[in-house]
Parts: sequence; C-alpha cells; structure tokens
Amino acid sequence: MKKNNLRVEFAGVTFAGAGPSDPALCTIATAAALASADAILYDDLGCQAVMDEHAAKDAQKVYVGKRGARDGATGATAQSAICEEIVRRALDGERVVRLKGGDPSTFGRLQDEIEACKANSLSWRVIAGVTSASAAAASLGVPLTAPRARRQVASLSVVSAHADVDWTSVSRGANTIAIYMGARKLESLARRLCAERGDSTPCMGVRRASSPDEARWVGTLAEAADGRMREALTDRKDDSQKNDSDLSPLLVVVGEAAKSDDDT
Amino acid sequence: MKKNNLRVEFAGVTFAGAGPSDPALCTIATAAALASADAILYDDLGCQAVMDEHAAKDAQKVYVGKRGARDGATGATAQSAICEEIVRRALDGERVVRLKGGDPSTFGRLQDEIEACKANSLSWRVIAGVTSASAAAASLGVPLTAPRARRQVASLSVVSAHADVDWTSVSRGANTIAIYMGARKLESLARRLCAERGDSTPCMGVRRASSPDEARWVGTLAEAADGRMREALTDRKDDSQKNDSDLSPLLVVVGEAAKSDDDT
Repeated sequence: MKKNNLRVEFAGVTFAGAGPSDPALCTIATAAALASADAILYDDLGCQAVMDEHAAKDAQKVYVGKRGARDGATGATAQSAICEEIVRRALDGERVVRLKGGDPSTFGRLQDEIEACKANSLSWRVIAGVTSASAAAASLGVPLTAPRARRQVASLSVVSAHADVDWTSVSRGANTIAIYMGARKLESLARRLCAERGDSTPCMGVRRASSPDEARWVGTLAEAADGRMREALTDRKDDSQKNDSDLSPLLVVVGEAAKSDDDT
Repeated sequence: MKKNNLRVEFAGVTFAGAGPSDPALCTIATAAALASADAILYDDLGCQAVMDEHAAKDAQKVYVGKRGARDGATGATAQSAICEEIVRRALDGERVVRLKGGDPSTFGRLQDEIEACKANSLSWRVIAGVTSASAAAASLGVPLTAPRARRQVASLSVVSAHADVDWTSVSRGANTIAIYMGARKLESLARRLCAERGDSTPCMGVRRASSPDEARWVGTLAEAADGRMREALTDRKDDSQKNDSDLSPLLVVVGEAAKSDDDT
C-alpha cells in the first residue's frame, strides 16, 4: 500500500496537520484533503479556524478532542473511541481526514490510530504540519536553534510537560527547550529549570501562537517561576476565577533564543 | 512595526519556510508570498520545486545557498553577502522573499538576516514552515515523540550534526533524536550513540524527505555505524566515486520511534 502521495485524490484515511491555528499556516496538501473530505475528525488545538476556511461545506465535522468539557464528564474523547470512529467511517467508504493541531507526528496519538487502520487493512497517509514552536518563533522573530551568543551548539528539545522528563539531561543536551502543554505546571517547571540554567535565563511564553488573539510574554525563568508569565497571559484577571485552562494552549521556550529585544 | 500579519499584502522582507521539498507541503502563506514577490533569495534544500510551483513567473530568483559549487571556490554564499543582498533590494522597494528550506527558525541563519533588516529599519515578517523531521516521520508513518513502548516520556531532541553537542545529555534527555545534516559524520555519530543507547537501538535515515526521489533506510544504530545506511542511501554505488554530498540531505532519527514494521 502506497501511503503518502500527497498529489493524488486519496480515498483512505488522511492524518493531517492543521498547523498552529492560522489557516494561512496550513499546508496546501492539508487544505486540499479538507476540501475533499467526507468526514473530518478534529481536535481542539488550532483546528477550528483551519476547518472553517478549508473544509468542504457538506463535510461532517466530528469533535474528538481531549480537552474541555464538550464530551462527557471528563471532557476527553477516549482514544479507543476515536480509533473506532475512524475505522467505522473508512470501512463505510467515507474519505476520512483526522485533523490534528500542529504536526501529527509531534505529540499526537498518531500511532494508535495508524495501527487501527493497519488492523483493518485501510489505506492511510500522513500530511506533516507546522508545529506551534515554529509558529511562535516565527511570530517573535527569534531562532529556535541558534543562540544569540553564536556558540556552535544548535539543538532543540521539544518536551511535553505531561511527560516524565529528565530535566537535567534535557537542559544540558539542548540550548533551546520548547515545552508544550506547560500551563498547569508552569511555575514548578520554571523553578526546576532555574536550578539547571540560572534565574536570569531568558524564557518566553506564547499562547495561541498564530491565532488572531495570540499573546506573548518575554522575561526570565525566575519571573516565570514567580507567576509573572501566568499573570500576563491569563485571560481572566480576577484571581478567584483563574484556573489552568485560562492559560492554555501555552508554548514555553527557554534559552538564549527566547530573548527578545527592541521591537516585539 | 507589525511584523507577522500573514493575511495582508506585505511590502517588506518575508522570511519564508519552503517546507521539506514537496510543493504541497508548503504553507498557503508561503505560496502567496512567493506569488507576489519581486525577488526570491533561495537556498539549496527543498526550495527549487516549491519555487517552480508557486513563484511569480517574472520574479527574480537569486541562489544564495551555502552548499554545492555553484558560487565560487567554496560553493558557499557568505552570510554577509546574503544580508547585503536582502537589504539592498528591500531598500530599492522590491518585495523580497528569503526562502529557506523547512522552517526558517530551525537551523537557519535567521537572526543575522533579521538583524540586518532591523539595522536598516526595514519591515520584516517570518512565515513558519514544515521541518524535514516532520515530513520524514509523516512519510514513514511513525511518531516523532511517542515511543512504541508507551512510556510516558515524550520528548525530541533536534540536533545539527555540525554542532558541538553533549551527546550523553541529548541521549538521556530525549526518547527520540532527530539529527539534521548528519551525512558527513554518520558512522561516527552512530557509533557514539551506540555507546549511549545500545547497538540494537532503532535508527532510520530519510534522504530528500517529501521529494519525488525520497529514499529511506530503517535498521539499527550498529548497522548505521557499519556503513549500512550510507550504502543504502548513497546514489553512486561505485565506491571510488562516493563522497559525502552523495548522501545529502539526510535526516537521521534515533530511538523507538524510528522502528518500522510491516508495510513501509
């Protein structure tokens, strides 16, 4: 089975990256897949605006996100239910697009869904997308991998804050650290990284990168640990009302690359 | 100066990601910028096909790549000359697109070029792109960040093989390592990582990801160290003729995510 020809009409299951949110940061391949889809199974992050602009009017749009409270008490669609929905529709002959925010190979549950396709002998392909780290860096005009200090080191660790991470190694192994899904643990992560890199290490937060209501904060790790990033980027300013979801989706970048200067 | 509105006609300098090579993996924003450019300053990797498909016919296309032997004895266009060319054209009122392979914030010399714009009070913006690591993962249908073993660890180190890297920390800090520009040092890098991760660690190489002549190899670190990846992915099979450029551009992915199975 040839999986990844992006140039032909494709009758199987397409796992497509929506990019960070701005429909202009969607790839031409994803836009074309959305335009010819019978059904689009979509996540929260970054998908709605892209779908609004590129999807066929009569495509069925099925929310299968893992956040919010739209679907049952926990708000999360079970992974097994997503896999079943993909398979059921594809076996019925629908052209299914599974739309994921950013890049489907980065922090998506891509593997489970591909395995469900394989188990049912369904054709599938993956369309890469722009990650929110790239979009945040573009928006601020900073490099992700090249430090201002022009050291030779050029590496990037892309970390999920939900993961069990060896932060000492992550910090030593990369000059820039991009942390996804860090809203809940923001202050404790920043404190942890202060111990590795020092209080004055540049740190930036970008919320809803590339969307019309993108918000940015640039400071130091110590300031982030003190709650300054949360304060700046949280929508509701009334402390009694604040909760973690008010800060999502958040991308945190740590390292010299996160330093801003004059005109941002 | 508002830098990053991707929706309006933009008269300044646009730093645009071409994506990995396939014109369908170019973003809508980059395609639009190319279509309205007066001049396009482009690199080697991944740019030509994108430009062929999306650029205005009468745009001036100026090669400013750093590889090959197209420009002088070393084959590299000096960074200062690129900055000067961008500034000169923009000051002359040309709409300049600086087209970079992949994502301009990842392993590009973006900062030098932005600073040249700032020094000359030129408006600029950055359009993010799909990196070749995402494209390679999409092509193979493997996740970059989630290991098959379903451990909680989800992190990715993206490393330039040209850099002075702490490989022990990189290896400990990330379950998946994506190495760019690793053709020249392939065997020594693989040997180095064997010492950290073990000989049987999955390792894959993807050359010219997303282009029509994409080539892939999947094996182990020990096999890569023994020259098996180079042998499989090098164009010229005559040993006396082989050189490093025959293996570029190469992306190497190390870790459980790099394991392939049945149908690739």
